[in-house]
Amino acid sequence: MEEIKRFGVSIESGLLEKFDRYINSNNYRNRSEALRDLIRKELVHDQWTKTGEEVAGAIVIVYDHHSHDVVGRLLEIQHDCSSIIISSQHIHLDHKNCLEIIVVKGKIDRIDELASKLKSIKGVKHATLSRSTLGKNI
Amino acid sequence: MEEIKRFGVSIESGLLEKFDRYINSNNYRNRSEALRDLIRKELVHDQWTKTGEEVAGAIVIVYDHHSHDVVGRLLEIQHDCSSIIISSQHIHLDHKNCLEIIVVKGKIDRIDELASKLKSIKGVKHATLSRSTLGKNI
Amino acid sequence: MEEIKRFGVSIESGLLEKFDRYINSNNYRNRSEALRDLIRKELVHDQWTKTGEEVAGAIVIVYDHHSHDVVGRLLEIQHDCSSIIISSQHIHLDHKNCLEIIVVKGKIDRIDELASKLKSIKGVKHATLSRSTLGKNI
Amino acid sequence: MEEIKRFGVSIESGLLEKFDRYINSNNYRNRSEALRDLIRKELVHDQWTKTGEEVAGAIVIVYDHHSHDVVGRLLEIQHDCSSIIISSQHIHLDHKNCLEIIVVKGKIDRIDELASKLKSIKGVKHATLSRSTLGKNI
Repeated sequence: MEEIKRFGVSIESGLLEKFDRYINSNNYRNRSEALRDLIRKELVHDQWTKTGEEVAGAIVIVYDHHSHDVVGRLLEIQHDCSSIIISSQHIHLDHKNCLEIIVVKGKIDRIDELASKLKSIKGVKHATLSRSTLGKNI
Repeated sequence: MEEIKRFGVSIESGLLEKFDRYINSNNYRNRSEALRDLIRKELVHDQWTKTGEEVAGAIVIVYDHHSHDVVGRLLEIQHDCSSIIISSQHIHLDHKNCLEIIVVKGKIDRIDELASKLKSIKGVKHATLSRSTLGKNI
Repeated sequence: MEEIKRFGVSIESGLLEKFDRYINSNNYRNRSEALRDLIRKELVHDQWTKTGEEVAGAIVIVYDHHSHDVVGRLLEIQHDCSSIIISSQHIHLDHKNCLEIIVVKGKIDRIDELASKLKSIKGVKHATLSRSTLGKNI
Repeated sequence: MEEIKRFGVSIESGLLEKFDRYINSNNYRNRSEALRDLIRKELVHDQWTKTGEEVAGAIVIVYDHHSHDVVGRLLEIQHDCSSIIISSQHIHLDHKNCLEIIVVKGKIDRIDELASKLKSIKGVKHATLSRSTLGKNI
């Protein structure tokens, strides 16, 4: 079990009042919980600005599986980058459209490169990259 | 097979030159392919500003599964929102940390609400929402 | 002088260590100062999701002043929206390009509408909107 | 007068229909104008990922001018970075709060550093950085 530290925070009463309203409407149980979340969000955001860092993330793509050879190209690129891919998951959105989620773990520049390659495949209509974390010490 | 339309675009030569370099370094095969991607990205971004629209997306959370009752709370909330959840996938990052991806489909305000609830659970360290699309007509 | 409140925060030692490094490399003098900034950033971000709120901001545009009637159109639109414009500032980037900053104050939907109108003027090459705050009680 | 080039674009009819609606509701006069804007937005966004590039931008800060020595610190930091600052503009939001816009031009890493320093001053409540462009060849 990790050690918990405690320290005091000073804050203007008007700002604290607004923050307490925010805490309430965002389902937090107390100020510490909300502050820890803000700190973690900032640290993860900060980490993604440093290309050499190890992170986790998810690439979400939507594609038309009827489009010429899109499935073959997707497999080929994923195999070339297999060392940073943990798993993938496939959803049939409708007769034509697929949503695929590729979970990745590795250095930021390699993840960015994979996301860029997947996005540019003919037939891939949309791609996003969720910038997440390995969760160590945060 | 969907009908393909063709139209002419006028563009300053300096801007076109820069765009051609961008196309090249981002693995696109031709200008049409790159332009279609820019159009789709803008349309999906635009759609996510309208709370009543139907979209698809993925909520990525990282949590410490040892944290008090986090697994129970996650299941409870997901069951309450089962009508917008398509599937979920679980990755063991290390002994303590889990990464979970929840694929969602539905109205934007309901998806936002689910993401906010998951984020505020004690034990959930980080949450992101990938704003994607159902892929219809784009 | 506004009243200062003080309260205790509990945080895991590993997370606190990482936060202290962040504080240090981002020039903050102490934890309270950094936490107040994170809280304010989140509150302002939250406020900009509610279209009826009163906010302040800055629209930054870059345009080619030789382009047909761009100066006339810019003036016309700004006069139509004069109730939300506080001031504007003009920079000569080079012989052809101007950077103009329009400071705005008012309801979010009206500011978004103005930014969209300015962006679509022929000759305006780029437009961004800085989402800031009136500073009241934060 | 810069040379205008013309080329053909192929696009699925469903996507084109959606794009035409977007063009219409965003005040563009024709497809070329809207496509040029999308291309420029993407190129500027791309440029800001490369720290050595020359760009233009605006740092918007909101601060309480009563706060201990905030005005002195702001001046000091701005003088240290005078080579990348073009001008600044000051707005009195109310009795206490000021909004200041600092227009910058230079390398991205130096601009980021200045924005970070200004943000961390005690009394500065909020800071944003508008990522714009020098407008050359775009």
